[in-house]
Amino acid sequence: MSEMKAEIAGRQNSGLGGEIIGRINELAAISETSGHLTRVFLTREHRAAAELILSWMISAGMRAHLDAIGNVCGRYEGEVAGLPCLMLGSHYDTVRDAGKWDGPLGLITAISCVADLHKRGRRLPFAIEVTGFADEEGVRFASTLLGSRAVAGTFDERALLVKDRAGISMRDALSEFGLDPDHIGAAARVRGELLAYVELHIEQGPVLEAENLVVGVVSAIAGATRLAASVTGMAGHAGTVPMRLRRDALAGAAECVVEIEEFCRTDEGGLVGTVGYINAMPGATNVIPGQVSFTIDIRAPSDAHRKRALADIVRRIENIAKRRKLALQLDVTHDNRTVPCAPWLKGQVAEAIAGEGYRVFELPSGAGHDGMAMIDIADVAMVFVRCRGGISHHPDEHVEKADVETGARVLLRLIENFRPRDAGQ
Amino acid sequence: MSEMKAEIAGRQNSGLGGEIIGRINELAAISETSGHLTRVFLTREHRAAAELILSWMISAGMRAHLDAIGNVCGRYEGEVAGLPCLMLGSHYDTVRDAGKWDGPLGLITAISCVADLHKRGRRLPFAIEVTGFADEEGVRFASTLLGSRAVAGTFDERALLVKDRAGISMRDALSEFGLDPDHIGAAARVRGELLAYVELHIEQGPVLEAENLVVGVVSAIAGATRLAASVTGMAGHAGTVPMRLRRDALAGAAECVVEIEEFCRTDEGGLVGTVGYINAMPGATNVIPGQVSFTIDIRAPSDAHRKRALADIVRRIENIAKRRKLALQLDVTHDNRTVPCAPWLKGQVAEAIAGEGYRVFELPSGAGHDGMAMIDIADVAMVFVRCRGGISHHPDEHVEKADVETGARVLLRLIENFRPRDAGQ
Repeated sequence: MSEMKAEIAGRQNSGLGGEIIGRINELAAISETSGHLTRVFLTREHRAAAELILSWMISAGMRAHLDAIGNVCGRYEGEVAGLPCLMLGSHYDTVRDAGKWDGPLGLITAISCVADLHKRGRRLPFAIEVTGFADEEGVRFASTLLGSRAVAGTFDERALLVKDRAGISMRDALSEFGLDPDHIGAAARVRGELLAYVELHIEQGPVLEAENLVVGVVSAIAGATRLAASVTGMAGHAGTVPMRLRRDALAGAAECVVEIEEFCRTDEGGLVGTVGYINAMPGATNVIPGQVSFTIDIRAPSDAHRKRALADIVRRIENIAKRRKLALQLDVTHDNRTVPCAPWLKGQVAEAIAGEGYRVFELPSGAGHDGMAMIDIADVAMVFVRCRGGISHHPDEHVEKADVETGARVLLRLIENFRPRDAGQ
Repeated sequence: MSEMKAEIAGRQNSGLGGEIIGRINELAAISETSGHLTRVFLTREHRAAAELILSWMISAGMRAHLDAIGNVCGRYEGEVAGLPCLMLGSHYDTVRDAGKWDGPLGLITAISCVADLHKRGRRLPFAIEVTGFADEEGVRFASTLLGSRAVAGTFDERALLVKDRAGISMRDALSEFGLDPDHIGAAARVRGELLAYVELHIEQGPVLEAENLVVGVVSAIAGATRLAASVTGMAGHAGTVPMRLRRDALAGAAECVVEIEEFCRTDEGGLVGTVGYINAMPGATNVIPGQVSFTIDIRAPSDAHRKRALADIVRRIENIAKRRKLALQLDVTHDNRTVPCAPWLKGQVAEAIAGEGYRVFELPSGAGHDGMAMIDIADVAMVFVRCRGGISHHPDEHVEKADVETGARVLLRLIENFRPRDAGQ
């Protein structure tokens, strides 16, 4: 089987993986700092990356342009001009000190697939568009999915007032970049223009690796609720206050952390809960903490599941605080709905994976992706490619060349066999 | 009983409490910043406070001088000149944003007691010395008990090289203050010169208040062991790593915090354990912490108890780390022996308390005190006075006037009835 697969791959896509990895590296060289990869919205590096990607799109036989918010947009016409499109894409901004695969792999693979069609003179009964979103990570203005929200027509104009750490507003940064902050609406697309939105992305988690699989079908992009928690007890001298007279805010917070972990660990439906940040005040070795702040991040494959879990967790934390005579404050700081992948589209992803000789495996995406915005104008599906150790948002992020090849073959097979929903499933 | 007590107090010490509180306030006005009380070693405020205290000592009939490390030293001769002394004292430096009672109450009360003897022309069969230690808190050079270690002859010369936050070495600060860093040895006293060291101090904890008592006999100054702990797991995306594949350093550390608290809470011998500081890395809401640092502070009334508890706690933490596949590092950063108060001397404190009509109650001091250094040249005892809510190292630190009066009466009674150990018990 694996020999046969290798033969098919060799016949169909010789060199696609090499081209993709070459471009991944070329793009990774465009960074704010040398040695570390950081490429954020509306910077010189954004500009340089956009120009490079547009040149690849043009080489792939696409018309290409920078849209009103700085996304790169390429279009490969179908059998006749002006048909609705299958949109492929991912983002090309990065977190700070990033890996080079998160975003670029999906964008570059899509361009290489189109290039392959173009080389073969293959036109399909629909257009293909490839969009490289300019800001998914939200590093500069602490607001994510700016590029895809603009395309989905849901960009929030209030974001223009947000300033970066240097005090520059998004409005000024757009102008400086040569874009008109009052015409971001021009980037918006409408539902009839898109047949679907499909994104290939690294998993950013360890599940595929643990399953010994190269690719997976995303079931849904998990919603997330984030809370800021604060527990207040009574600070005191670490030596002079007997245990029975303490109201130790950190001991209380620690019990909450353990409880959140235990609750999620015993859930069988993919619930995850994380306390990523904690701060004990005053924070001295010899002082009983009087106040502790911590964050809670809860995600589940469905909104109902997440909300039910959240209510349970809040009740448990409230009980801990009550028993320990600690004051508790909980504030929701972030609440994103779950974006389910469309069954008809997931089915085509599964067919493409099976067609390449791999076992079909569904997994939720715990991380956010541009599909969370694109769902407002199109049905969404995602293909995950495994990454080494599940590591992401880190320079150690890595994808094997053979896996890049496999991802590209799956995406190309998906494109070539794509049937719009109206074509009947 | 309480009427009789009030009458005795009125007859013997009318106004002692008022004088003490007046001086507490006068001394509290000498601060680095107005509005907050901060008075640290070898500063302009140290100088001004020393001059004020020396003037009180002289008014109380003592010879007084600043010693080689900046302690204020007063001597009230006994029936003949040159007798060994009962040494009383406390410190007059403060933590940052301090209360005004921690240190000064004991020092000023001792001076007022001597002033009372002097006013009455009372000479005792021993001398009385009062020492105001220049640095007990260790704020400036992160090294505590500098004043009392110099008096005990155990000052570590290496401390002279330590620099403060402004980069000034202790050596230079001493010179600048007008002291000779090469002659700190001149501050040292020897065992034969002291009959005992007795210190009155606020409790800095809530035990006396909970017992509805004004004063207590300190059983021992608890030894303390401090550890720096670090647990390392694997950082990861809060959304993409399933619970069963996590090695969450914060969940592990939280379990340790809860375990330490539970272990100490169920100990019946006065053991206390505190995690005062914690830091989770990278510390982002949506990232599973890969590494967590925290501190552990363990105190018990005896060294054997503390060491046994420490070994148990370390074993439990090691088990947690092992079960969770976390790497654990534990380093002892501080280890102070327990200083037991001398039974013969505690007996005399108890007699003085009973003599004033109060129930005798023993409690350990969980906080460190100058007695920890003085033990090297004298037997040590301490009288604790309750403070409101057990609050200390905070501007809310407070002692009621009636309690100041009671503390002064107990100390004066102790002085007047003092018998050296050789006099037989």
